[in-house]
Amino acid sequence: MTKECVHGSEASGCAIPCKAAVAWEAGKPLVIEKVEVAPPQAMEVRIKVKYTSLCHTDLHFWEAKTPLFPRIFGHEAAGIVESVGEGVDDLKPGDHVLPVFTGECGECRHCLSDESNMCDLLRIDTDRGVMLRDGKSRFSLNGIPINHFLGTSTFSEYTVIHSGCLAKIDPLAPLDKVCILSCGISTGLGATLNVAKPYKGSSVAVFGLGAVGLAAAEGARIAGASRIIGIDSNPRRFEEAKKFGMTEFINPKDHERPVQEVISEMTDGGVDRSVECTGSIDAMISAFECVHDGWGVAVLVGVPNKDAVFRTKPVNFLNERTLKGTFFGNYKPRTDLPSIVDMYMNKKLELDKFITHRVPFSEINKAFEYMMNNQGLRCIISMED
Amino acid sequence: MTKECVHGSEASGCAIPCKAAVAWEAGKPLVIEKVEVAPPQAMEVRIKVKYTSLCHTDLHFWEAKTPLFPRIFGHEAAGIVESVGEGVDDLKPGDHVLPVFTGECGECRHCLSDESNMCDLLRIDTDRGVMLRDGKSRFSLNGIPINHFLGTSTFSEYTVIHSGCLAKIDPLAPLDKVCILSCGISTGLGATLNVAKPYKGSSVAVFGLGAVGLAAAEGARIAGASRIIGIDSNPRRFEEAKKFGMTEFINPKDHERPVQEVISEMTDGGVDRSVECTGSIDAMISAFECVHDGWGVAVLVGVPNKDAVFRTKPVNFLNERTLKGTFFGNYKPRTDLPSIVDMYMNKKLELDKFITHRVPFSEINKAFEYMMNNQGLRCIISMED
Ligand SMILES: NC(=O)c1ccc[n+]([C@@H]2O[C@H](COP(=O)([O-])OP(=O)(O)OC[C@H]3O[C@@H](n4cnc5c(N)ncnc54)[C@H](O)[C@@H]3O)[C@@H](O)[C@H]2O)c1
Ligand SMILES: NC(=O)c1ccc[n+]([C@@H]2O[C@H](COP(=O)([O-])OP(=O)(O)OC[C@H]3O[C@@H](n4cnc5c(N)ncnc54)[C@H](O)[C@@H]3O)[C@@H](O)[C@H]2O)c1
Ligand SMILES: [Zn+2]
Ligand SMILES: [Zn+2]
Ligand SMILES: [Zn+2]
Ligand SMILES: [Zn+2]
Repeated sequence: MTKECVHGSEASGCAIPCKAAVAWEAGKPLVIEKVEVAPPQAMEVRIKVKYTSLCHTDLHFWEAKTPLFPRIFGHEAAGIVESVGEGVDDLKPGDHVLPVFTGECGECRHCLSDESNMCDLLRIDTDRGVMLRDGKSRFSLNGIPINHFLGTSTFSEYTVIHSGCLAKIDPLAPLDKVCILSCGISTGLGATLNVAKPYKGSSVAVFGLGAVGLAAAEGARIAGASRIIGIDSNPRRFEEAKKFGMTEFINPKDHERPVQEVISEMTDGGVDRSVECTGSIDAMISAFECVHDGWGVAVLVGVPNKDAVFRTKPVNFLNERTLKGTFFGNYKPRTDLPSIVDMYMNKKLELDKFITHRVPFSEINKAFEYMMNNQGLRCIISMED
Repeated sequence: MTKECVHGSEASGCAIPCKAAVAWEAGKPLVIEKVEVAPPQAMEVRIKVKYTSLCHTDLHFWEAKTPLFPRIFGHEAAGIVESVGEGVDDLKPGDHVLPVFTGECGECRHCLSDESNMCDLLRIDTDRGVMLRDGKSRFSLNGIPINHFLGTSTFSEYTVIHSGCLAKIDPLAPLDKVCILSCGISTGLGATLNVAKPYKGSSVAVFGLGAVGLAAAEGARIAGASRIIGIDSNPRRFEEAKKFGMTEFINPKDHERPVQEVISEMTDGGVDRSVECTGSIDAMISAFECVHDGWGVAVLVGVPNKDAVFRTKPVNFLNERTLKGTFFGNYKPRTDLPSIVDMYMNKKLELDKFITHRVPFSEINKAFEYMMNNQGLRCIISMED
């Protein structure tokens, strides 16, 4: 295998030299480097990334002092299959795909269950920097291996991904839009459509108006909710949220009482459904306690800090409230993502309003700055400058 | 209105003198007294109680020092309509009925919702000792009013009940059996069948092997569960429970580890469904944490003490577990109870194994003794000695 190998139809056998944004140290700007991307092994696929976007999870692990640097981050993206490894028979070069940070092996108890998407084999693992097959990285820079992130590492022109973590989508779908479906937007959308399941005419409270919460609101709009109440402790989020069909806003800091009491009063006893997208334990408790007795369903999405404890009076459950959590909106990545792309193609789902910034790959650090400054929702990074 | 009035076809206009077991003081044996039962007012029905049984809720409020003595307890029963008040057009003298401690007005938001059975008008109210209509009692003894209990007061040969709290059932059903469907057994059965909803082949954990928990197990048997695991801190309950299709038993006191860990190990990651029927907050937490991630559903039935706080790590929810509570097994009393009676008539539901004792009305205090000594499950009190 030589660095000079020209990638073409035989590329699957060769390493591909290409540009990648390498994080050398926690919190330090990424550096665009020339790396080599090894060919896909059995059950793996090498893709050409076309567009990628930045999600809080990238930011979080880029800031965290883990032993996994140097690392190539990135997990929200869209690309095209370049070559496939042995045993991959449902994807071929040229297929349009969305990489997903969690996968679907198709064979474990979770994949076989209609109710779960938490694949035993390919479930998210933030501590792994290598491929499952051989425990090694497919990226190298002057012979030094560079760690993977979430099995996707999309901040690279080429990347290698387990075939179970790639959803094949409609080739007509614009990749610079649907790339945001590979993580946060699907998470919020599915939390509402698959888990909270509001009826037409329902009232829905959404806690946290970041991209995930606004996607939950988009789900409520699609389901035909008549009232969508947005709750955020940062009132700067309210302006943007108006595009998402939200009818009312509450800043918990404006009230002396717990926000669940405010909501209960506004809605004659509580909302029909609530979706928490903050990661704050207080918001989780409020989201549960603000749903109506008898039929209310609350869904937790946010990732809390490790020491957080959820607490409530058991009578809140006994009065027939339901509390559920969700992971990736309960979507099975390979089975279900294509249909979300179709929802967008059929104009049922609106995506453009989530895309607030665009930068070329060479300016990827700007995307980090926007997010750190709470500017906008999603910044699309175009791999082809 | 005279005490001598003979009750017959015109009885609805007269008070009926009859025997009732009056609780004069908290915790003191009931005394069989001659009381007068006034005629039913608008939307009320007077019934002749045929059989009644004792439930923990009777015992609990009989022991509690409330200001509502003298009181006539009793809420699990079966009877026959004697007369109906103005506006009652769906019940007539001779109809066979089960009284229920909670009702169904048919008009409030809860009654109109497919998901709730917590009627705004007729929801359980343990603090009320009078009828809704006029805030007065229908029972009197030498002119002294005697308080009602749960709107049912079935420890009396005749009683007056809101028509929304009476389910009309198949007249062929044996009242000395189906009387136990009017509270605890339906509560446990519905917790499994309507709320936990195990699939055929599921594993189900039942916490608490009293009548309610064993009814939950009966629901699991009917649903076709392949493993039913019984958990009780009183191992004397295990022998009786074997009749209920339970395959395994755990006493939490036999283990150093929390029982959820023991269950998780026995079941390769957790049971598919769990139903808590103890009232203990520790059991509630264990019942939630012992269900499998991805698809597990836990249902709370037990009534906890007022200060109890449910607490768990939010990640237990985020890993796609569901926690629900139920009230009266989510059955709508009037709409759904007839079909449970039918399940018994069709031999799908077994009731005989719940009935461990029988006493004549004159020996009603024995039923209290059996329950206080934890003997058996249900004691049927026959009103006609
Ligand atoms: N982004 C993803 O792809 C993804 C996927 C799965 C889960 N999640 C989780 O979902 C959550 C939301 O993600 P995001 O990207 O939208 O984050 P974000 O930071 O953009 O938005 C969170 C919002 O919640 C608000 N908030 C925080 N605490 C609050 C409180 N107590 N009450 C009211 N509002 C409060 C913040 O002001 C902020 O506007 C995070 O916990 C994230 O880990 C994210
Ligand atoms: N009986 C009813 O009609 C009815 C209706 C609705 C709700 N409930 C509630 O359901 C619960 C059960 O009712 P029941 O009549 O079967 O009661 P019960 O007292 O006969 O049974 C409860 C069982 O739970 C066991 N238990 C208590 N704490 C435990 C723990 N920490 N771990 C394991 N086992 C434990 C006890 O040993 C007992 O066997 C009660 O809380 C009751 O208030 C009852
Ligand atoms: Zn799998
Ligand atoms: Zn993400
Ligand atoms: Zn009602
Ligand atoms: Zn009862």
